[in-house]
Amino acid sequence: MTKKKSNQGVEILAIGTELLLGNILNSNAKWLAEQLALIGLPHYRQSVIGDNVERLKEIILEISQRSQILITTGGLGPTPDDLTTETIAQLFQTKLVEHKTILEDIKKKLNGLNQLLESNLKQSLLPEGANILPNPLGTAPGMIWSPKDNFTIITFPGVPSEMKKMWEETVKPWLIKKQPSNKIFKSKTIKIAGIQESVLTEKIADLLKKKNPTVATYASLGEVKIRITAQAKTNQEANRIINPIEYELEKIFGTSIFGKDEETLASILIDLLRKRGETISLAESCTGGQIASAFTSIPGSSDVFLGGVVAYNNSIKQNILKVPLNLLEKHGAVSSAVAMAMARNTRQLFHSDWSIATSGIAGPSGGSKNKPVGLVEIFISGKTSEESIQENFGSYRGRDCIQKLSVVRALDRLRLFMLKQS
Amino acid sequence: MTKKKSNQGVEILAIGTELLLGNILNSNAKWLAEQLALIGLPHYRQSVIGDNVERLKEIILEISQRSQILITTGGLGPTPDDLTTETIAQLFQTKLVEHKTILEDIKKKLNGLNQLLESNLKQSLLPEGANILPNPLGTAPGMIWSPKDNFTIITFPGVPSEMKKMWEETVKPWLIKKQPSNKIFKSKTIKIAGIQESVLTEKIADLLKKKNPTVATYASLGEVKIRITAQAKTNQEANRIINPIEYELEKIFGTSIFGKDEETLASILIDLLRKRGETISLAESCTGGQIASAFTSIPGSSDVFLGGVVAYNNSIKQNILKVPLNLLEKHGAVSSAVAMAMARNTRQLFHSDWSIATSGIAGPSGGSKNKPVGLVEIFISGKTSEESIQENFGSYRGRDCIQKLSVVRALDRLRLFMLKQS
Repeated sequence: MTKKKSNQGVEILAIGTELLLGNILNSNAKWLAEQLALIGLPHYRQSVIGDNVERLKEIILEISQRSQILITTGGLGPTPDDLTTETIAQLFQTKLVEHKTILEDIKKKLNGLNQLLESNLKQSLLPEGANILPNPLGTAPGMIWSPKDNFTIITFPGVPSEMKKMWEETVKPWLIKKQPSNKIFKSKTIKIAGIQESVLTEKIADLLKKKNPTVATYASLGEVKIRITAQAKTNQEANRIINPIEYELEKIFGTSIFGKDEETLASILIDLLRKRGETISLAESCTGGQIASAFTSIPGSSDVFLGGVVAYNNSIKQNILKVPLNLLEKHGAVSSAVAMAMARNTRQLFHSDWSIATSGIAGPSGGSKNKPVGLVEIFISGKTSEESIQENFGSYRGRDCIQKLSVVRALDRLRLFMLKQS
Repeated sequence: MTKKKSNQGVEILAIGTELLLGNILNSNAKWLAEQLALIGLPHYRQSVIGDNVERLKEIILEISQRSQILITTGGLGPTPDDLTTETIAQLFQTKLVEHKTILEDIKKKLNGLNQLLESNLKQSLLPEGANILPNPLGTAPGMIWSPKDNFTIITFPGVPSEMKKMWEETVKPWLIKKQPSNKIFKSKTIKIAGIQESVLTEKIADLLKKKNPTVATYASLGEVKIRITAQAKTNQEANRIINPIEYELEKIFGTSIFGKDEETLASILIDLLRKRGETISLAESCTGGQIASAFTSIPGSSDVFLGGVVAYNNSIKQNILKVPLNLLEKHGAVSSAVAMAMARNTRQLFHSDWSIATSGIAGPSGGSKNKPVGLVEIFISGKTSEESIQENFGSYRGRDCIQKLSVVRALDRLRLFMLKQS
């Protein structure tokens, strides 16, 4: 049954019965696929299999016959149904050996516990000859192991944050070094808010047909990313391929581009405020703390983001933000007038240079004919100028989506407003 | 190379290069997996393959040798890289025949266009002998076809809404009728906070070995889910299988169980507060609005969740929450004394029955020997009783993780505190 290796590339195998039961999305495979594409490693197949020794052996044997590298996720935990490592060792008839360094690391991470748990012991076992793939964030290390010629297995735990860190620190550099061609892939991501993906792609139809660099768009809630990917021999060559396209996109989309690569709307605003020596505060109703969460996810943001009030119940708008009762009664909580009072009063209360207020109907109930679910009022109050924004995100999108779109819109409108001012 | 069919079940194959590039999540496979579990059809493997004739033939041939039913998604559209139907026909050496009824249907759906597009013509072709799987929402029909004994292929388009409609209207009833056994699967999920997965699994080692129901654990940040899954002929029988295990878990874990199935810590607290006719407010520093976001993600929460103050910058703790300067100077912002003042003053300010305050060092910088990154102070202030909680989540987990663990811990400790009181 020996077979010529038909794929000669990488395969991804996600291990876990919860995936076969449809309990969770296989977001790990998507993330790894994206990373493999970025470093230019061909990847032709993905599989999912349950926590079952026989089926796991069967599929790994198949993959070892057709591909060079197998990347697995899942099954490295301490429970009995975590059986990736021991099954691989069995399949390739190799004994497991204990690694003292892993044991020491696990002990450190479980320092709240008096002694190492029996179940964690198995996490220190790897097949003889396998290299430890260190896990800086959890107790489950992975491995990089070539059980036979021209076939390497790389195992990751299923926890996405751990997998990502292990990829960045160990696996990515290892794969890049191992690659036969000297080609590198380099990407630049341009981030845009406030333009629909279909409208955007029509404007760059020609660019989307290019071969090197490739240009592709990815939409998420309220934002679109355009990724330029160049294949080149050196970093400098890659830059020479990317730069003219980046410049062209800047010409086409101008200030609609809010950031690049790892930048987020919140990080861009924090930078902008810091440069201007200004501060901001928030009065959140329908966004319920999500704008504050976006700012506070940025390390060191407390020098410009002072804080905010989540004025969810109307009594708080009145008592703490001092929105006059007659304003609430006359216009309703979701109105430009109330959002204005919320923003102005919060700016005074926090002694900040800027304030944003949000008030809207996130649903599913609470809508009316004049004020349907999806209606959101945003008010930006600055020292010398103000802006009132009304959005209708529609009811069909659902509560979670309306809240998230409101966050993106509020941050982006503040960004544009500040740019106009400077 | 004939092989005994090892799986005897269903496989899912998602077709599309965009999946291999990591451009989109394979949400179709998750959805179908869930649906298959609900009707009790065993499903042992999922695969993803690109838009490539040879690789597609190779994988479908493999699947036809080991499984009884193959469900594919994608590759039914009008563009040249949509090649599912013709590739399957080629593989099983069957000619394609044109279906007038499909053509009529496509014409109706494209009525904005004067004439049928050339590219849509191919959507009316199916292998001879295949049954049309109607697509009420789009121009791409699927098929149900048995190209050989004991093997059936069901093709869906990749558009999730179309696939779901076609599943509900045609495929689901067809599969239920075809099923040899009348078994159904039913699951119950028990949710636990405050116990590490490894500790938890040791306590239920025996249960984890059971066959019907099966018992499995899934960990996420600060929480562990235990899922009990029964296979039975009727819903009542499934309940009879699940109930004793559920009862046993309740005995073992008691109040550490915060909820079941779709319940979340936030939804449970909102319910608990509503039953008691009590309200809550928040003073968030290190969690920066994330506890508020958790509450406001629950529709209708504004009757018990009044709102909160995100006191991120220390000036806000002083000016708005009236934390005395000498307290801040003497103990530092991350201290039990300051968290207490924040919680107490917020409860007064908002006139709420309860208040939670958080203050911690989420990092990556700002830590010291006495107050390392990962140290979090939580204070619960009630009308008649209070609790101070200190946690050290460790610095290795990173900012995002420390913030999320703080949210889970704060909500869970409030829940336990309220239960003790009643």
